[in-house]
Amino acid sequence: MNADKQISPTSLAGYIDHTLLKSDAKIADILKVCDEAKAHGFASVCVNPSYIRYVAEQLAGSAVTPCCVVGFPFGTHTPGAKKGETMEAVTNGAKEIDMVINVGAIKSGDWALVKQDVEAVIEGAGGKAGVKVILETCLLTDEEKIKACEICKAAGAAFVKTSTGYSTGGATAADVALMRKTVGSNVGVKASGGVKTYEDAVKMIEAGANRLGASAGIKIIAGPSGDTAPTGKDSY
Amino acid sequence: MNADKQISPTSLAGYIDHTLLKSDAKIADILKVCDEAKAHGFASVCVNPSYIRYVAEQLAGSAVTPCCVVGFPFGTHTPGAKKGETMEAVTNGAKEIDMVINVGAIKSGDWALVKQDVEAVIEGAGGKAGVKVILETCLLTDEEKIKACEICKAAGAAFVKTSTGYSTGGATAADVALMRKTVGSNVGVKASGGVKTYEDAVKMIEAGANRLGASAGIKIIAGPSGDTAPTGKDSY
Repeated sequence: MNADKQISPTSLAGYIDHTLLKSDAKIADILKVCDEAKAHGFASVCVNPSYIRYVAEQLAGSAVTPCCVVGFPFGTHTPGAKKGETMEAVTNGAKEIDMVINVGAIKSGDWALVKQDVEAVIEGAGGKAGVKVILETCLLTDEEKIKACEICKAAGAAFVKTSTGYSTGGATAADVALMRKTVGSNVGVKASGGVKTYEDAVKMIEAGANRLGASAGIKIIAGPSGDTAPTGKDSY
Repeated sequence: MNADKQISPTSLAGYIDHTLLKSDAKIADILKVCDEAKAHGFASVCVNPSYIRYVAEQLAGSAVTPCCVVGFPFGTHTPGAKKGETMEAVTNGAKEIDMVINVGAIKSGDWALVKQDVEAVIEGAGGKAGVKVILETCLLTDEEKIKACEICKAAGAAFVKTSTGYSTGGATAADVALMRKTVGSNVGVKASGGVKTYEDAVKMIEAGANRLGASAGIKIIAGPSGDTAPTGKDSY
Protein backbone atom coordinates (compact mmCIF):
# COMPACT_ATOMS: atom_id res chain seq x y z
CA MET A 1 0.00 0.00 0.00
CA ASN A 2 1.43 3.31 -1.03
CA ALA A 3 -0.72 5.56 1.07
CA ASP A 4 1.44 8.62 0.64
CA LYS A 5 0.23 8.83 -2.97
CA GLN A 6 -3.39 8.85 -1.87
CA ILE A 7 -3.54 11.74 0.62
CA SER A 8 -1.82 15.02 -0.11
CA PRO A 9 0.17 16.29 2.85
CA THR A 10 -1.44 19.73 2.92
CA SER A 11 -4.92 18.23 2.86
CA LEU A 12 -4.10 16.74 6.26
CA ALA A 13 -4.17 20.19 7.89
CA GLY A 14 -7.94 20.11 8.19
CA TYR A 15 -7.70 16.93 10.24
CA ILE A 16 -5.30 18.27 12.81
CA ASP A 17 -5.97 19.68 16.27
CA HIS A 18 -2.78 21.72 16.69
CA THR A 19 -1.97 20.92 20.28
CA LEU A 20 0.10 22.44 23.08
CA LEU A 21 -0.64 20.98 26.49
CA LYS A 22 2.69 21.08 28.30
CA SER A 23 2.14 22.46 31.80
CA ASP A 24 4.98 24.96 31.47
CA ALA A 25 3.86 26.39 28.10
CA LYS A 26 4.01 30.18 28.12
CA ILE A 27 1.41 32.57 26.71
CA ALA A 28 3.89 33.41 23.96
CA ASP A 29 4.08 29.72 23.00
CA ILE A 30 0.28 29.53 22.88
CA LEU A 31 -0.02 32.59 20.66
CA LYS A 32 2.57 31.14 18.29
CA VAL A 33 0.55 27.95 17.98
CA CYS A 34 -2.54 30.04 17.16
CA ASP A 35 -0.67 31.86 14.42
CA GLU A 36 0.58 28.57 12.99
CA ALA A 37 -2.92 27.13 13.00
CA LYS A 38 -4.31 30.09 11.10
CA ALA A 39 -1.45 30.05 8.62
CA HIS A 40 -1.75 26.34 7.85
CA GLY A 41 -5.50 25.89 8.24
CA PHE A 42 -5.47 23.39 11.08
CA ALA A 43 -8.86 22.27 12.42
CA SER A 44 -8.35 23.65 15.92
CA VAL A 45 -5.92 24.82 18.54
CA CYS A 46 -6.09 22.59 21.61
CA VAL A 47 -4.86 23.95 24.95
CA ASN A 48 -5.29 23.75 28.71
CA PRO A 49 -8.14 25.66 30.41
CA SER A 50 -6.09 28.53 31.74
CA TYR A 51 -5.16 29.52 28.16
CA ILE A 52 -8.42 28.99 26.28
CA ARG A 53 -9.54 32.61 26.54
CA TYR A 54 -6.34 33.78 24.85
CA VAL A 55 -6.82 31.19 22.12
CA ALA A 56 -10.44 32.20 21.53
CA GLU A 57 -9.38 35.84 21.21
CA GLN A 58 -6.52 35.00 18.89
CA LEU A 59 -8.61 32.78 16.62
CA ALA A 60 -11.64 35.09 16.47
CA GLY A 61 -12.73 35.61 12.86
CA SER A 62 -10.68 32.66 11.59
CA ALA A 63 -11.86 29.19 10.59
CA VAL A 64 -9.78 27.59 13.34
CA THR A 65 -11.73 26.26 16.33
CA PRO A 66 -10.70 26.98 19.95
CA CYS A 67 -10.47 23.61 21.72
CA CYS A 68 -10.00 23.11 25.46
CA VAL A 69 -9.15 19.98 27.45
CA VAL A 70 -11.13 19.13 30.59
CA GLY A 71 -10.12 16.82 33.44
CA PHE A 72 -6.77 16.60 31.76
CA PRO A 73 -4.69 14.46 31.73
CA PHE A 74 -5.81 12.06 34.49
CA GLY A 75 -9.60 12.24 34.20
CA THR A 76 -9.83 11.51 37.91
CA HIS A 77 -11.93 14.55 38.73
CA THR A 78 -15.56 14.36 39.78
CA PRO A 79 -18.41 14.84 37.27
CA GLY A 80 -19.24 18.12 39.02
CA ALA A 81 -15.70 19.45 38.68
CA LYS A 82 -15.53 18.44 35.03
CA LYS A 83 -18.89 20.03 34.32
CA GLY A 84 -17.85 23.27 36.01
CA GLU A 85 -14.55 23.29 34.13
CA THR A 86 -16.45 22.75 30.87
CA MET A 87 -18.92 25.55 31.52
CA GLU A 88 -16.09 27.95 32.29
CA ALA A 89 -14.17 26.88 29.17
CA VAL A 90 -17.25 27.47 27.01
CA THR A 91 -17.75 30.88 28.62
CA ASN A 92 -14.12 31.58 27.79
CA GLY A 93 -14.69 30.76 24.12
CA ALA A 94 -14.09 27.02 23.71
CA LYS A 95 -16.03 25.51 20.81
CA GLU A 96 -14.69 22.01 21.34
CA ILE A 97 -14.01 20.19 24.63
CA ASP A 98 -11.62 17.24 24.91
CA MET A 99 -12.47 15.56 28.20
CA VAL A 100 -10.64 12.61 29.79
CA ILE A 101 -12.83 9.68 30.79
CA ASN A 102 -12.59 8.36 34.36
CA VAL A 103 -10.31 5.37 33.79
CA GLY A 104 -10.30 4.46 37.48
CA ALA A 105 -14.08 4.17 37.38
CA ILE A 106 -13.84 1.89 34.35
CA LYS A 107 -11.26 -0.26 36.11
CA SER A 108 -13.51 -0.39 39.18
CA GLY A 109 -16.45 -1.50 37.05
CA ASP A 110 -18.33 1.67 38.02
CA TRP A 111 -19.91 2.24 34.60
CA ALA A 112 -22.67 4.36 36.11
CA LEU A 113 -20.02 6.89 37.12
CA VAL A 114 -18.38 6.72 33.69
CA LYS A 115 -21.74 7.54 32.09
CA GLN A 116 -22.59 10.26 34.60
CA ASP A 117 -19.18 11.83 34.03
CA VAL A 118 -19.51 11.98 30.22
CA GLU A 119 -23.09 13.22 30.46
CA ALA A 120 -22.08 15.95 32.93
CA VAL A 121 -19.52 17.36 30.51
CA ILE A 122 -21.89 17.23 27.55
CA GLU A 123 -24.50 18.98 29.68
CA GLY A 124 -21.91 21.56 30.72
CA ALA A 125 -21.08 22.20 27.08
CA GLY A 126 -24.77 22.98 26.59
CA GLY A 127 -24.71 22.45 22.84
CA LYS A 128 -22.22 25.29 22.44
CA ALA A 129 -19.20 23.01 22.09
CA GLY A 130 -18.77 19.51 20.72
CA VAL A 131 -17.36 17.06 23.24
CA LYS A 132 -14.58 14.61 22.47
CA VAL A 133 -14.04 11.88 25.03
CA ILE A 134 -10.49 10.65 25.56
CA LEU A 135 -10.56 6.96 26.47
CA GLU A 136 -6.84 6.58 27.25
CA THR A 137 -6.91 3.36 25.28
CA CYS A 138 -3.46 2.21 26.41
CA LEU A 139 -4.94 1.53 29.85
CA LEU A 140 -8.07 -0.31 28.67
CA THR A 141 -8.95 -3.78 27.45
CA ASP A 142 -10.75 -4.07 24.11
CA GLU A 143 -13.95 -4.89 25.96
CA GLU A 144 -13.59 -1.72 28.04
CA LYS A 145 -12.85 0.36 24.92
CA ILE A 146 -16.04 -0.92 23.25
CA LYS A 147 -18.21 -0.29 26.31
CA ALA A 148 -16.74 3.19 26.73
CA CYS A 149 -17.43 3.99 23.07
CA GLU A 150 -21.02 2.85 23.42
CA ILE A 151 -21.53 5.07 26.45
CA CYS A 152 -20.01 8.06 24.66
CA LYS A 153 -22.16 7.54 21.59
CA ALA A 154 -25.36 7.17 23.62
CA ALA A 155 -24.52 10.30 25.64
CA GLY A 156 -24.11 12.39 22.49
CA ALA A 157 -20.35 12.80 22.32
CA ALA A 158 -19.11 14.35 19.08
CA PHE A 159 -15.95 12.22 19.06
CA VAL A 160 -14.22 9.42 20.85
CA LYS A 161 -10.47 9.98 21.12
CA THR A 162 -7.67 7.55 21.83
CA SER A 163 -5.13 9.17 24.14
CA THR A 164 -3.95 12.08 26.24
CA GLY A 165 -0.34 11.66 25.13
CA TYR A 166 0.63 11.56 28.82
CA SER A 167 0.10 7.91 29.74
CA THR A 168 1.83 4.69 28.81
CA GLY A 169 0.97 4.74 25.11
CA GLY A 170 -0.69 6.62 22.27
CA ALA A 171 -2.89 5.97 19.27
CA THR A 172 -2.69 2.66 17.42
CA ALA A 173 -4.37 1.82 14.12
CA ALA A 174 -5.99 -1.19 15.76
CA ASP A 175 -7.63 0.95 18.45
CA VAL A 176 -8.80 3.52 15.92
CA ALA A 177 -10.36 0.77 13.82
CA LEU A 178 -12.07 -0.75 16.86
CA MET A 179 -13.44 2.62 17.91
CA ARG A 180 -14.68 3.43 14.40
CA LYS A 181 -16.36 0.04 14.14
CA THR A 182 -18.05 0.59 17.50
CA VAL A 183 -19.33 4.14 17.06
CA GLY A 184 -20.22 3.91 13.36
CA SER A 185 -20.13 6.84 11.00
CA ASN A 186 -22.08 9.44 12.97
CA VAL A 187 -19.53 9.92 15.75
CA GLY A 188 -15.99 11.14 15.11
CA VAL A 189 -12.82 9.25 15.97
CA LYS A 190 -9.74 11.25 16.94
CA ALA A 191 -6.31 9.62 16.99
CA SER A 192 -3.85 11.29 19.33
CA GLY A 193 -0.64 10.51 21.15
CA GLY A 194 2.45 9.64 19.16
CA VAL A 195 1.03 10.90 15.84
CA LYS A 196 4.24 12.56 14.73
CA THR A 197 4.74 12.04 11.00
CA TYR A 198 2.85 12.13 7.73
CA GLU A 199 2.95 8.33 7.69
CA ASP A 200 1.47 8.12 11.19
CA ALA A 201 -1.31 10.47 10.13
CA VAL A 202 -2.18 8.53 6.98
CA LYS A 203 -2.19 5.27 8.89
CA MET A 204 -4.65 6.64 11.43
CA ILE A 205 -6.97 8.07 8.77
CA GLU A 206 -6.92 4.78 6.87
CA ALA A 207 -7.87 3.03 10.10
CA GLY A 208 -10.92 5.28 10.47
CA ALA A 209 -9.84 8.48 12.19
CA ASN A 210 -11.37 11.76 11.00
CA ARG A 211 -9.43 13.97 13.39
CA LEU A 212 -5.82 13.87 14.59
CA GLY A 213 -4.33 15.39 17.72
CA ALA A 214 -0.70 16.35 17.32
CA SER A 215 1.92 18.83 18.41
CA ALA A 216 3.84 17.93 15.24
CA GLY A 217 1.23 19.22 12.79
CA ILE A 218 3.66 21.33 10.82
CA LYS A 219 5.98 18.38 10.35
CA ILE A 220 3.06 16.13 9.38
CA ILE A 221 1.82 18.42 6.60
CA ALA A 222 5.36 18.74 5.26
CA GLY A 223 4.84 15.27 3.80
CA PRO A 224 6.56 11.90 3.82
CA SER A 225 9.48 11.86 6.18
CA GLY A 226 11.57 9.36 4.23
CA ASP A 227 12.13 7.77 7.58
CA THR A 228 12.55 4.01 7.20
CA ALA A 229 11.81 3.33 10.85
CA PRO A 230 8.40 1.92 11.70
CA THR A 231 5.82 4.64 12.30
CA GLY A 232 2.73 4.85 14.41
CA LYS A 233 4.49 3.54 17.47
CA ASP A 234 3.56 4.79 20.89
CA SER A 235 6.60 6.99 21.14
CA TYR A 236 6.75 10.26 23.03
CA MET B 1 27.08 11.47 58.26
CA ASN B 2 25.32 8.36 59.46
CA ALA B 3 21.78 9.63 59.33
CA ASP B 4 20.17 6.25 59.59
CA LYS B 5 21.23 6.12 63.25
CA GLN B 6 19.46 9.38 63.98
CA ILE B 7 15.92 8.75 62.76
CA SER B 8 14.17 5.49 63.50
CA PRO B 9 12.43 4.05 60.44
CA THR B 10 9.05 3.65 62.10
CA SER B 11 9.11 7.24 63.33
CA LEU B 12 9.02 8.28 59.67
CA ALA B 13 5.44 7.05 59.30
CA GLY B 14 4.05 10.26 60.76
CA TYR B 15 5.80 12.24 58.03
CA ILE B 16 4.34 10.31 55.14
CA ASP B 17 1.36 11.14 52.92
CA HIS B 18 0.59 7.62 51.68
CA THR B 19 -0.12 8.37 48.05
CA LEU B 20 -1.95 6.69 45.17
CA LEU B 21 -2.58 8.99 42.22
CA LYS B 22 -2.36 6.70 39.19
CA SER B 23 -5.27 7.43 36.89
CA ASP B 24 -6.20 3.77 36.58
CA ALA B 25 -6.20 3.02 40.31
CA LYS B 26 -9.26 1.01 41.30
CA ILE B 27 -11.46 1.55 44.35
CA ALA B 28 -10.04 -1.68 45.78
CA ASP B 29 -6.50 -0.25 45.46
CA ILE B 30 -7.59 2.92 47.24
CA LEU B 31 -9.19 1.02 50.12
CA LYS B 32 -6.01 -1.06 50.51
CA VAL B 33 -3.95 2.12 50.80
CA CYS B 34 -6.34 3.38 53.50
CA ASP B 35 -5.94 0.16 55.48
CA GLU B 36 -2.15 0.39 55.18
CA ALA B 37 -2.18 3.99 56.37
CA LYS B 38 -4.21 3.11 59.45
CA ALA B 39 -2.04 0.08 60.22
CA HIS B 40 1.24 1.97 59.96
CA GLY B 41 0.15 5.40 61.23
CA PHE B 42 0.90 7.42 58.12
CA ALA B 43 0.03 11.12 58.21
CA SER B 44 -2.53 11.00 55.43
CA VAL B 45 -3.86 9.15 52.42
CA CYS B 46 -3.50 11.27 49.29
CA VAL B 47 -5.74 10.52 46.30
CA ASN B 48 -7.46 12.02 43.27
CA PRO B 49 -10.78 13.87 43.68
CA SER B 50 -13.05 11.12 42.42
CA TYR B 51 -11.89 8.87 45.28
CA ILE B 52 -11.70 11.28 48.22
CA ARG B 53 -15.18 10.46 49.53
CA TYR B 54 -14.26 6.77 49.83
CA VAL B 55 -11.04 7.70 51.61
CA ALA B 56 -12.84 9.99 54.05
CA GLU B 57 -15.30 7.21 54.87
CA GLN B 58 -12.56 4.64 55.27
CA LEU B 59 -10.43 6.82 57.52
CA ALA B 60 -13.29 8.11 59.70
CA GLY B 61 -12.42 7.72 63.37
CA SER B 62 -8.72 7.18 62.68
CA ALA B 63 -5.81 9.60 63.08
CA VAL B 64 -5.05 9.47 59.36
CA THR B 65 -6.02 12.58 57.37
CA PRO B 66 -7.93 12.38 54.04
CA CYS B 67 -5.91 14.38 51.50
CA CYS B 68 -7.05 15.30 47.99
CA VAL B 69 -5.12 16.71 45.04
CA VAL B 70 -6.55 19.64 43.07
CA GLY B 71 -5.62 20.79 39.56
CA PHE B 72 -3.53 17.65 39.36
CA PRO B 73 -1.05 17.02 37.84
CA PHE B 74 -0.72 19.92 35.37
CA GLY B 75 -2.05 22.86 37.40
CA THR B 76 -3.23 24.45 34.17
CA HIS B 77 -6.82 24.88 35.29
CA THR B 78 -8.39 28.24 36.02
CA PRO B 79 -8.62 29.62 39.58
CA GLY B 80 -12.39 29.15 39.39
CA ALA B 81 -12.11 25.50 38.43
CA LYS B 82 -9.54 24.84 41.16
CA LYS B 83 -11.68 26.60 43.75
CA GLY B 84 -14.74 24.59 42.75
CA GLU B 85 -12.76 21.37 42.83
CA THR B 86 -11.47 22.27 46.30
CA MET B 87 -14.92 23.08 47.67
CA GLU B 88 -16.25 19.78 46.40
CA ALA B 89 -13.28 17.86 47.84
CA VAL B 90 -13.83 19.48 51.24
CA THR B 91 -17.54 18.64 51.07
CA ASN B 92 -16.49 15.07 50.30
CA GLY B 93 -14.31 14.92 53.41
CA ALA B 94 -10.86 16.20 52.45
CA LYS B 95 -8.94 17.72 55.36
CA GLU B 96 -5.87 18.53 53.30
CA ILE B 97 -5.66 19.81 49.71
CA ASP B 98 -2.56 19.41 47.55
CA MET B 99 -2.99 21.87 44.68
CA VAL B 100 -0.68 22.28 41.70
CA ILE B 101 0.52 25.82 41.03
CA ASN B 102 0.02 27.29 37.55
CA VAL B 103 3.51 26.75 36.15
CA GLY B 104 2.59 28.23 32.76
CA ALA B 105 1.55 31.46 34.51
CA ILE B 106 4.90 31.55 36.32
CA LYS B 107 6.74 31.01 33.05
CA SER B 108 4.66 33.77 31.45
CA GLY B 109 5.53 36.15 34.30
CA ASP B 110 1.85 36.38 35.23
CA TRP B 111 2.43 36.42 38.99
CA ALA B 112 -0.96 38.04 39.58
CA LEU B 113 -2.60 34.88 38.22
CA VAL B 114 -0.31 32.67 40.30
CA LYS B 115 -1.39 34.56 43.43
CA GLN B 116 -5.07 34.60 42.47
CA ASP B 117 -4.92 30.85 41.83
CA VAL B 118 -3.41 29.99 45.23
CA GLU B 119 -5.77 32.36 47.01
CA ALA B 120 -8.79 30.87 45.23
CA VAL B 121 -7.96 27.38 46.49
CA ILE B 122 -7.31 28.57 50.04
CA GLU B 123 -10.60 30.43 49.93
CA GLY B 124 -12.30 27.30 48.59
CA ALA B 125 -10.87 25.28 51.47
CA GLY B 126 -12.55 27.77 53.80
CA GLY B 127 -10.36 26.94 56.78
CA LYS B 128 -11.65 23.36 56.76
CA ALA B 129 -8.58 21.93 55.03
CA GLY B 130 -4.94 22.96 54.99
CA VAL B 131 -3.61 23.73 51.54
CA LYS B 132 -0.29 22.47 50.23
CA VAL B 133 0.94 24.12 47.05
CA ILE B 134 2.93 21.96 44.63
CA LEU B 135 5.50 24.13 42.86
CA GLU B 136 6.73 21.48 40.38
CA THR B 137 10.25 22.60 41.18
CA CYS B 138 11.86 20.67 38.31
CA LEU B 139 10.33 23.17 35.90
CA LEU B 140 11.30 26.34 37.83
CA THR B 141 14.41 28.46 38.28
CA ASP B 142 15.56 29.15 41.83
CA GLU B 143 14.27 32.70 41.52
CA GLU B 144 10.85 31.39 40.49
CA LYS B 145 10.84 28.87 43.37
CA ILE B 146 11.55 31.66 45.86
CA LYS B 147 8.89 33.98 44.48
CA ALA B 148 6.34 31.14 44.43
CA CYS B 149 7.15 30.28 48.05
CA GLU B 150 6.68 33.90 49.09
CA ILE B 151 3.28 34.05 47.39
CA CYS B 152 2.18 30.80 49.03
CA LYS B 153 3.30 31.97 52.46
CA ALA B 154 1.56 35.35 52.12
CA ALA B 155 -1.64 33.65 50.91
CA GLY B 156 -1.76 31.38 53.96
CA ALA B 157 -0.73 28.05 52.49
CA ALA B 158 -0.08 25.34 55.08
CA PHE B 159 2.75 23.82 53.06
CA VAL B 160 4.81 24.31 49.96
CA LYS B 161 5.52 21.04 48.18
CA THR B 162 8.15 20.16 45.62
CA SER B 163 6.63 17.90 42.96
CA THR B 164 3.68 16.07 41.46
CA GLY B 165 5.78 13.02 40.62
CA TYR B 166 4.49 13.30 37.04
CA SER B 167 6.87 15.83 35.47
CA THR B 168 10.54 15.77 34.55
CA GLY B 169 11.90 15.42 38.08
CA GLY B 170 11.11 15.04 41.76
CA ALA B 171 12.26 16.33 45.12
CA THR B 172 15.88 17.29 45.66
CA ALA B 173 17.52 18.16 48.96
CA ALA B 174 18.67 21.46 47.48
CA ASP B 175 15.11 22.47 46.58
CA VAL B 176 13.77 21.45 49.97
CA ALA B 177 16.49 23.52 51.70
CA LEU B 178 15.74 26.53 49.50
CA MET B 179 12.00 26.25 50.18
CA ARG B 180 12.55 25.88 53.92
CA LYS B 181 14.87 28.87 53.97
CA THR B 182 12.29 30.94 52.07
CA VAL B 183 9.13 30.07 54.02
CA GLY B 184 10.74 29.90 57.49
CA SER B 185 9.44 27.68 60.26
CA ASN B 186 5.74 28.54 60.23
CA VAL B 187 4.94 26.99 56.84
CA GLY B 188 5.46 23.31 56.11
CA VAL B 189 7.68 21.89 53.39
CA LYS B 190 6.66 18.64 51.72
CA ALA B 191 9.14 16.65 49.66
CA SER B 192 7.55 14.45 47.02
CA GLY B 193 8.43 12.74 43.77
CA GLY B 194 11.14 10.08 43.79
CA VAL B 195 11.14 9.65 47.59
CA LYS B 196 11.39 5.89 47.53
CA THR B 197 13.71 4.70 50.28
CA TYR B 198 14.51 5.28 53.95
CA GLU B 199 17.66 7.08 52.85
CA ASP B 200 15.72 9.40 50.52
CA ALA B 201 13.33 10.21 53.35
CA VAL B 202 16.08 10.99 55.85
CA LYS B 203 17.87 13.18 53.34
CA MET B 204 14.71 15.22 52.73
CA ILE B 205 13.99 15.65 56.43
CA GLU B 206 17.56 16.72 57.09
CA ALA B 207 17.19 19.30 54.31
CA GLY B 208 14.13 20.77 56.03
CA ALA B 209 11.08 18.76 54.98
CA ASN B 210 8.43 18.04 57.62
CA ARG B 211 6.19 16.02 55.32
CA LEU B 212 6.95 13.45 52.65
CA GLY B 213 4.78 12.35 49.75
CA ALA B 214 5.39 8.78 48.69
CA SER B 215 3.78 5.69 47.25
CA ALA B 216 6.64 3.69 48.79
CA GLY B 217 5.81 4.48 52.43
CA ILE B 218 5.82 0.89 53.56
CA LYS B 219 9.27 0.33 52.06
CA ILE B 220 10.53 3.58 53.59
CA ILE B 221 9.52 2.68 57.15
CA ALA B 222 11.08 -0.77 56.74
CA GLY B 223 14.42 0.98 57.22
CA PRO B 224 17.77 1.27 55.46
CA SER B 225 17.71 -0.47 52.13
CA GLY B 226 21.35 -1.50 52.11
CA ASP B 227 21.28 -0.26 48.56
CA THR B 228 24.66 1.14 47.60
CA ALA B 229 23.29 3.11 44.66
CA PRO B 230 22.91 6.87 45.10
CA THR B 231 19.55 7.83 46.55
CA GLY B 232 17.34 10.88 46.26
CA LYS B 233 17.65 10.95 42.49
CA ASP B 234 14.72 12.07 40.38
CA SER B 235 13.87 8.58 39.34
CA TYR B 236 10.39 7.33 38.52
